Amino acid sequence: MHRIPVGVLGASGYAGRELCALIAEHPGLDLAFATANERRGDNLALSSGSITFIATDDAPLNKAELVFSSLPHGASAEWVERVRAAGPRVVDLSSDLRPGHSHKVVPYGLTELNRPQLQDAPLIANPGCYPTAILLALAPLVRRGLVQQGATVVADAASGVTGAGNSPRAEMMFGEVTENFRAYAVGNEHRHLPEMRDTIARLNGDFDLLFTPHLLPVARGILATITVPVDSVPDDLLSPWREEYANEPFVELANDPPALKDVVRRNVCRIAVRRVSGVRQPTLLVFSAIDNLVKGAAGQAIQNANVSLGLAETMGLPA
Amino acid sequence: MHRIPVGVLGASGYAGRELCALIAEHPGLDLAFATANERRGDNLALSSGSITFIATDDAPLNKAELVFSSLPHGASAEWVERVRAAGPRVVDLSSDLRPGHSHKVVPYGLTELNRPQLQDAPLIANPGCYPTAILLALAPLVRRGLVQQGATVVADAASGVTGAGNSPRAEMMFGEVTENFRAYAVGNEHRHLPEMRDTIARLNGDFDLLFTPHLLPVARGILATITVPVDSVPDDLLSPWREEYANEPFVELANDPPALKDVVRRNVCRIAVRRVSGVRQPTLLVFSAIDNLVKGAAGQAIQNANVSLGLAETMGLPA
Amino acid sequence: MHRIPVGVLGASGYAGRELCALIAEHPGLDLAFATANERRGDNLALSSGSITFIATDDAPLNKAELVFSSLPHGASAEWVERVRAAGPRVVDLSSDLRPGHSHKVVPYGLTELNRPQLQDAPLIANPGCYPTAILLALAPLVRRGLVQQGATVVADAASGVTGAGNSPRAEMMFGEVTENFRAYAVGNEHRHLPEMRDTIARLNGDFDLLFTPHLLPVARGILATITVPVDSVPDDLLSPWREEYANEPFVELANDPPALKDVVRRNVCRIAVRRVSGVRQPTLLVFSAIDNLVKGAAGQAIQNANVSLGLAETMGLPA
Amino acid sequence: MHRIPVGVLGASGYAGRELCALIAEHPGLDLAFATANERRGDNLALSSGSITFIATDDAPLNKAELVFSSLPHGASAEWVERVRAAGPRVVDLSSDLRPGHSHKVVPYGLTELNRPQLQDAPLIANPGCYPTAILLALAPLVRRGLVQQGATVVADAASGVTGAGNSPRAEMMFGEVTENFRAYAVGNEHRHLPEMRDTIARLNGDFDLLFTPHLLPVARGILATITVPVDSVPDDLLSPWREEYANEPFVELANDPPALKDVVRRNVCRIAVRRVSGVRQPTLLVFSAIDNLVKGAAGQAIQNANVSLGLAETMGLPA
Repeated sequence: MHRIPVGVLGASGYAGRELCALIAEHPGLDLAFATANERRGDNLALSSGSITFIATDDAPLNKAELVFSSLPHGASAEWVERVRAAGPRVVDLSSDLRPGHSHKVVPYGLTELNRPQLQDAPLIANPGCYPTAILLALAPLVRRGLVQQGATVVADAASGVTGAGNSPRAEMMFGEVTENFRAYAVGNEHRHLPEMRDTIARLNGDFDLLFTPHLLPVARGILATITVPVDSVPDDLLSPWREEYANEPFVELANDPPALKDVVRRNVCRIAVRRVSGVRQPTLLVFSAIDNLVKGAAGQAIQNANVSLGLAETMGLPA
Repeated sequence: MHRIPVGVLGASGYAGRELCALIAEHPGLDLAFATANERRGDNLALSSGSITFIATDDAPLNKAELVFSSLPHGASAEWVERVRAAGPRVVDLSSDLRPGHSHKVVPYGLTELNRPQLQDAPLIANPGCYPTAILLALAPLVRRGLVQQGATVVADAASGVTGAGNSPRAEMMFGEVTENFRAYAVGNEHRHLPEMRDTIARLNGDFDLLFTPHLLPVARGILATITVPVDSVPDDLLSPWREEYANEPFVELANDPPALKDVVRRNVCRIAVRRVSGVRQPTLLVFSAIDNLVKGAAGQAIQNANVSLGLAETMGLPA
Repeated sequence: MHRIPVGVLGASGYAGRELCALIAEHPGLDLAFATANERRGDNLALSSGSITFIATDDAPLNKAELVFSSLPHGASAEWVERVRAAGPRVVDLSSDLRPGHSHKVVPYGLTELNRPQLQDAPLIANPGCYPTAILLALAPLVRRGLVQQGATVVADAASGVTGAGNSPRAEMMFGEVTENFRAYAVGNEHRHLPEMRDTIARLNGDFDLLFTPHLLPVARGILATITVPVDSVPDDLLSPWREEYANEPFVELANDPPALKDVVRRNVCRIAVRRVSGVRQPTLLVFSAIDNLVKGAAGQAIQNANVSLGLAETMGLPA
Repeated sequence: MHRIPVGVLGASGYAGRELCALIAEHPGLDLAFATANERRGDNLALSSGSITFIATDDAPLNKAELVFSSLPHGASAEWVERVRAAGPRVVDLSSDLRPGHSHKVVPYGLTELNRPQLQDAPLIANPGCYPTAILLALAPLVRRGLVQQGATVVADAASGVTGAGNSPRAEMMFGEVTENFRAYAVGNEHRHLPEMRDTIARLNGDFDLLFTPHLLPVARGILATITVPVDSVPDDLLSPWREEYANEPFVELANDPPALKDVVRRNVCRIAVRRVSGVRQPTLLVFSAIDNLVKGAAGQAIQNANVSLGLAETMGLPA
């Protein structure tokens, strides 16, 4: 089979390396180049052999049909323009072009919600990790108008450290994280809120989100525990999700609350829903788990590339 | 100084061993016996030497002035009666005699809230670990009538594994817990709800609690992230807690959200409060952290014993 | 492609589940059945769908061309006989038929050392995890007579907890293993010594092995640090390993000492060799790392099945 | 009781903070100042209140009777001179003045071996963490001439991450260390070798040491597994250690190999000895465990300060 050449900008971070590893296993893609300015000249071992990082300035952009940008927030937008000018399609993993961050209207690659806009799209803004877990969990309720108007939906979520990247920082050292747990960016201060609010508004949701992320002493995985005030609790609790995701290969519904172990190294979002006893306000508890580096970053980027390029959406992705 | 002789029933579990270790360091208490049926004959190393576990049936109850029961839920109540009949005071760490579990009215040893009832009390029901963290965080709001009537307070909390005891269970093996995170007892099913609801009602709170515990890959510590709908957000955010806990040696108020590392091996509850932007419903975020084995179990039991026996409340406790 | 039907006995343990997962990804094998007496009726999720555990007694042995036994040591030998009597080939992952444990001469599936005996073999004893790491590291020296005669080779090794299986045991609980490290089976008492000694003797090594295993607070992986007294240190340090493993797909030689992260989830043994300064006795340090569940168990079992069945040796294995 | 004023230079690292915490609990010492250039102005919470870091240049050296230097290797020696010139005694935790590193003869604070030289000493070089564990394990054999002449003693040791300090480094990030294990400084390259060789030579040992450190995914603790060729194995295996350490408060002999959990947060070295079966060369296995921050750094520094100042040696130390 002919393999489509692709490139990765910013390939030495956690998401960038995951991308390279997934591309190496992908039967329809070929890794033409991988850039990493500070580590240029270093080799990255892959199942298909190894690749040598080059400087981003030296990337032969026109040798790729599609380029993934895993460059840092702030630095990515400029490179996306340069790549587009050179010809290739782009899947941008930074937040630079996501809704709420940019005035440009760029298709938002939460694949299950926006697939029609992604087909043949020359540019896709890949979602943040927390928004992937939380929006896939909420969308079936929002689309059906089931969330109570004006209510506050409480999304308490916890992530492994790879969500914070691999630049050395004192608070991410092993000695600080092991046997520890804490909230951060509290009070609705996290960078992922704009894309969540924008998506909820597009789905005509009229409620507020209160999002509190926490740092877990694990490498990978996100679990979101979401409390949703509803007008009434449906008899068939899971029906909104079953209907919405009937044919989705990468959403799985579970009876028991998902654990990180259920989703790590897989390109899936696993969702469970529970009713709540002993409260007057009708309420649903929705749990959603993903691997922040796979469905929350590199895996979903490949999924979007597959859709853009007209390949089978599941190609090369661990289910 | 004369040391008051005390005993520990059920001393081989995590809370029981922590009790023995704290008693060994306590300048006013002397460990007269420690029982553990399955491990009888084994030695427990302590800073004051070591003690040999004896069978609970063989405990010389009348040699102690106060007995701590760390026996399992269900098995403790009967032993509490036997100890009381033999004379000594009792601090019971099980849930058997806590409000909501028993028809007896036993003083509930959340020391900061119930101190007057605990002085010279012959029997004290020591609170659960989650209720300690959550009730100390909520009490200042409840007492001041600040929680919105009829609202749902969302308490998402996470605990280290020692909260689940040390009996071998498949889901608590290292290989299952490491790099994992999950909710359990979801939908308001946890055994700690009755004592929380009872305490809120006694404080004249008229709201519902939605409590979702999670299991962390750490040994010790609880962090509760609590979302509280309020009628209005006070200008001086921390004032309810500052007023309530002005002279409390074991409650500390923090500006930044507490981390487990701030409280582990200490008999403190550390609380921070934040306002929330971007939500229409006035809301407070309250964070509360404790060591589940110290302020959440053995430390608070010693604190209650100190109060009951007329010792300085802080004696022998790591602050 | 026609897929060869295979079965797994004892499929609910760590190695058994790893086997099922690898078979599900294998393009030449089809999982006909998986047995687990205590968990019969439970489903095991696999990338190819899910399979329901059946009782071992109910296994349709004659539907498989090859059966993997992941039954416990002591229980496996009898089932190996029953399977052989029913027709299928067997790869036995237990220690029952390994050299030093059994009077039967069963081909020992350390593939790189014994490949000719494994081709078309109806029965293969799959090696233990520690022996895989240690023997692959030592074999090039032993075969070339480079280890000093009569010397003691010191093999200090450390393993993740999955090497101990998933039966609930107090000392393997998360609370006991986290932040801990200890040696076990010390003084040459470990069950894996006989197969190591037997293999060294077959390779005409005349030296003693001192093997001390340690338990790491990680799920997977073995690292062996091996001190080898030699008659003289070769100028070209790595040449024995380069010659021995020139065409081996699953042995990789490294300049830097291998880390667990280099090998986890891969069917490889990664080896590095260093000279030692400041000692009078010429000495080599050999480091060897594997994933105990892959190259140390299920992966090597598949590798051996591939060789026995005449498939490409690397088929279906993560390199 | 009058408390002797002491200061800490370099108080923001792991060892420096541990020192401050121990001094705060010490009934005979008072923390006069704590310096940390990069974090000056920050508060360090202590059980006795909190202390504000000042710049090292601003330290009121003459207000202390003894100063602990926890400054980095290379930077400490100069400050030791300045402190000595100002009057106070010094316990230096860096390697700058240890035997093998300096031409000056400074008493080496491995307290159990060198106590007479430490009494009233104005300057003490505190040992490294690995040397503390390894030398205390070996000394009884060396002093009795029991190690085989010319032999290689193999010391494979593993340490938690706090041994590497708390400066941000890529390879010490949580995501790199969790679920990992690796050797480093291999081939006798570690900075702790000179002090070990010097001490062995002073004890008239005529053998070579091969020391290989490893990095554990834990915060604290060192375990050394030491293989010692001996002329003959004594019948009463533990007698050399029992004789040597009969009255030592901080050395404990164990029957079972020590685990990190046995020693963490304690100022002890725990040692076990085993014979080895199946080897021709008579050999002992010696296991030694310490907390690298307590007996391996700050605790031993306090122990040495107690000896120098004429306080009870055990004062303020967790046993």
